[in-house]
Amino acid sequence: MGYFRDNVERAEAYVPGFQPKATDVVKLNTNENPYPPSPQVMKTLTEMKPEQLRRYPDPLGTAFREAAAEVNGVEPANIMCCNGGDDLLSIAIRACCDEQRPMAYPVPTYTLYPVLARLHNCQTIEVAFDEEFNLPAKLATTGAALMIVCNPNAPTGSIIGAEELASLAAEIKGVLLIDEAYADFAEDNCAPLVKEFDNVILLRSLSKGYSLAGLRFGYAIAAEGLIGGLLKVKDSYNVDAVAIALATAALKDQAWFRENVEKIKTQRRLLTERLRSLGFIVPASHSNFVLARVTNGSADEIYEELARRDIFVRYFRVPGLSDRLRISIGTNEQNERLMTALREILTA
Amino acid sequence: MGYFRDNVERAEAYVPGFQPKATDVVKLNTNENPYPPSPQVMKTLTEMKPEQLRRYPDPLGTAFREAAAEVNGVEPANIMCCNGGDDLLSIAIRACCDEQRPMAYPVPTYTLYPVLARLHNCQTIEVAFDEEFNLPAKLATTGAALMIVCNPNAPTGSIIGAEELASLAAEIKGVLLIDEAYADFAEDNCAPLVKEFDNVILLRSLSKGYSLAGLRFGYAIAAEGLIGGLLKVKDSYNVDAVAIALATAALKDQAWFRENVEKIKTQRRLLTERLRSLGFIVPASHSNFVLARVTNGSADEIYEELARRDIFVRYFRVPGLSDRLRISIGTNEQNERLMTALREILTA
Repeated sequence: MGYFRDNVERAEAYVPGFQPKATDVVKLNTNENPYPPSPQVMKTLTEMKPEQLRRYPDPLGTAFREAAAEVNGVEPANIMCCNGGDDLLSIAIRACCDEQRPMAYPVPTYTLYPVLARLHNCQTIEVAFDEEFNLPAKLATTGAALMIVCNPNAPTGSIIGAEELASLAAEIKGVLLIDEAYADFAEDNCAPLVKEFDNVILLRSLSKGYSLAGLRFGYAIAAEGLIGGLLKVKDSYNVDAVAIALATAALKDQAWFRENVEKIKTQRRLLTERLRSLGFIVPASHSNFVLARVTNGSADEIYEELARRDIFVRYFRVPGLSDRLRISIGTNEQNERLMTALREILTA
Repeated sequence: MGYFRDNVERAEAYVPGFQPKATDVVKLNTNENPYPPSPQVMKTLTEMKPEQLRRYPDPLGTAFREAAAEVNGVEPANIMCCNGGDDLLSIAIRACCDEQRPMAYPVPTYTLYPVLARLHNCQTIEVAFDEEFNLPAKLATTGAALMIVCNPNAPTGSIIGAEELASLAAEIKGVLLIDEAYADFAEDNCAPLVKEFDNVILLRSLSKGYSLAGLRFGYAIAAEGLIGGLLKVKDSYNVDAVAIALATAALKDQAWFRENVEKIKTQRRLLTERLRSLGFIVPASHSNFVLARVTNGSADEIYEELARRDIFVRYFRVPGLSDRLRISIGTNEQNERLMTALREILTA
C-alpha cells in the first residue's frame, strides 16, 4: 500500500499561470484585473481590529452573504462564501461526484476541472465544442451527476446564452454548475436561472471584476436546497475574517467595479482591433482576456519571445489551443507595450 | 439520482462552537487565545499594498514556508501552508483515504474527523482511549491508510509522548498525522519525528498560540515526499496574500508568542486549582483549555446556567463527555468571572 491513493499518485499537480516576482513586467497571463481594488477595500483593511483576527470568523460570512444577495437580487440563503472560485469547484465535486457519479463539461475549458476530477477519482465526460463554441447538444445526454459550463468560457472568451443553459438545466437530472468567474465582463449572466431551477449553481469570483485575486474570494448562488448541501461539504471556516470584510467592502462599491469593468471592455475592443490588424484571428471576447490565433509564425515561439521581453501571456501546449495565445486585458499602456513587442517579433 | 452523493445526503454538517456576536461576553468555548495577536501582525496589515490584493498570491506561500522552516529547524520543502488546520485534515483525507482505505483515530477526540471521513465516504476505525488517555495499542494494527492522533488531544487536554508516537509511526504502513493544533501549550512536540519518518505529518495552527483564529492559517510539517503529494491535492491558491503576510509576521515574532503562551500556562494552572477547589475533577491539561468533570450536579445544566450569564464554555452531548465541560483558558479577569458564576450556580 502506498501512502497515497493511486489516483493521487498518478495525478499531476495543476500548474497555475507563472507568477513572476518582479513587478515591472507586463503580466497578461493570469487574467488579473489591471486596475487596483476599490479604495473602500483598503480602508476596510486598515480598520481591521486585532479582535477580529483573534476570534474565529463567522463560519457563514453573513455580512458578505447579505451584500451579495442584494447585488444579485436573491436572498442571503442563496449565497455561499468560498475561498476563491476553485474552492467552490472542489466543494461541488465532493458533494456530487464519485466513481459512480461522473462529471461532464465541454472542452476546451478551464484546465482545473479534469485535475480536480482525477483527485476526486471521478470519471470525466468531455464533450468537444464545435468551431464556434456553441453548447454541445450531447452534453444533455451524458447522465453526469455534475455538469460544468464555464460561461464566458476560458480560454476561448466565448459565451452561451442564458436561455440555452436554462434548457440544459431543465433537461438534465444532475446539477449544472455555471462557472461565471468571467461574467462581470459579459453583457449578460445566468442569475435568473437560480430562481427557476433547483439544480443550478452559479460560481462567482472577486478575483477578476473586483481586482481581488490576492484575496481568494468567490461565492455560489443557488437555490436554498443546493446551498444547504454545499454548506455541509465546505470547511467549517473556509473564509477568513479579513477576506469576508474586504470582499464585502468590494462588493458594496459597485460604482468602482462598474467603472473598471467598462475600462477593461474599452481596452478589450482596442486590443482585439490591434491584434487583428497584425494578422491574428481574434474572436469577440466576453471576458477579460482574448484568445488570439497565430496565422503568421508559431504561437509557442511568440510566447517565448514575449517572455524574453518581460511580457507574459498564456500559452497552452494542448491540442486545439497550440496555435493560440491567451492574453489578459491590461491597461492601455500595457497593451501598447505588448503591441510594440509583437510588431518587433513578427517582423524579425 | 439525487443531486448529492448518498454519503453527503446522510451527513450532518459539523457544528462549530457558538460564535456570539456580542463582544462583552466571556467566550471560553472555542479555544481562542485571550490575548491579541502580535503588533507586527497589525503593522503588516496596514502596510498591505493594493497590488498584493490585485495579483494572485504566491501559490506556495514561500515567505511563510521559509519562516516556518526556521522556527521548526526544517527546510521550506518540509512545510505546506493551509487555510487553517482543517484544510490540512481535508487534504490529507483526500490524499490518503477512500472506500478501500480507512482512517483510524483514538476517541474521544476532535469531532471533525468523523465528519470529514463521512463526507469523503471513507470508513473510520475508532479506538477508545483508556481512562488515562494513553495511546491505544490496538491503533497500530488497524491497517488504516491514515491514522490521526490529536496531540495534545481535544477535548481531553491529555498528551502522548513523542517516543510512543515514533514507535507507532515505525510500526504502521500508512500515514500518521499528528494534529498538533494545541502543541504550543505543551512542553514538547513531535517535530523530531519528521526527520526520522517519511510517513509522519504534523499539523500546526496559528489559531491558538498566535491568536489568529480569524485568519485561518495552519501548516503541515512532513518529509518532502509527503509534502509533494499533499501539494497535488490542495487548492492551487489555498492561502491568500493577506493571510500569508500576516501569518509570516506572527511566526517571526516569537517573543510575543512565547510571552502569551506563558501567560496562558499560568492561567491554566490557576484555573485548574480553582475548579478543583470547587469539586470539579480536572486532569492536568497540556492545551489552552481544561476538561472539567462535574461531580456535583449536571454538566448540561451548568453549561446552560453559564450561557444565561453570558459565559460560554463547550458542552458535548456525547457518551463519555456528557458529565464534563471544556473550558478555554481566558484572561485572569475572564477566569475570575467564570469562577464567580460557578460558585453562584453550584450553591443555588
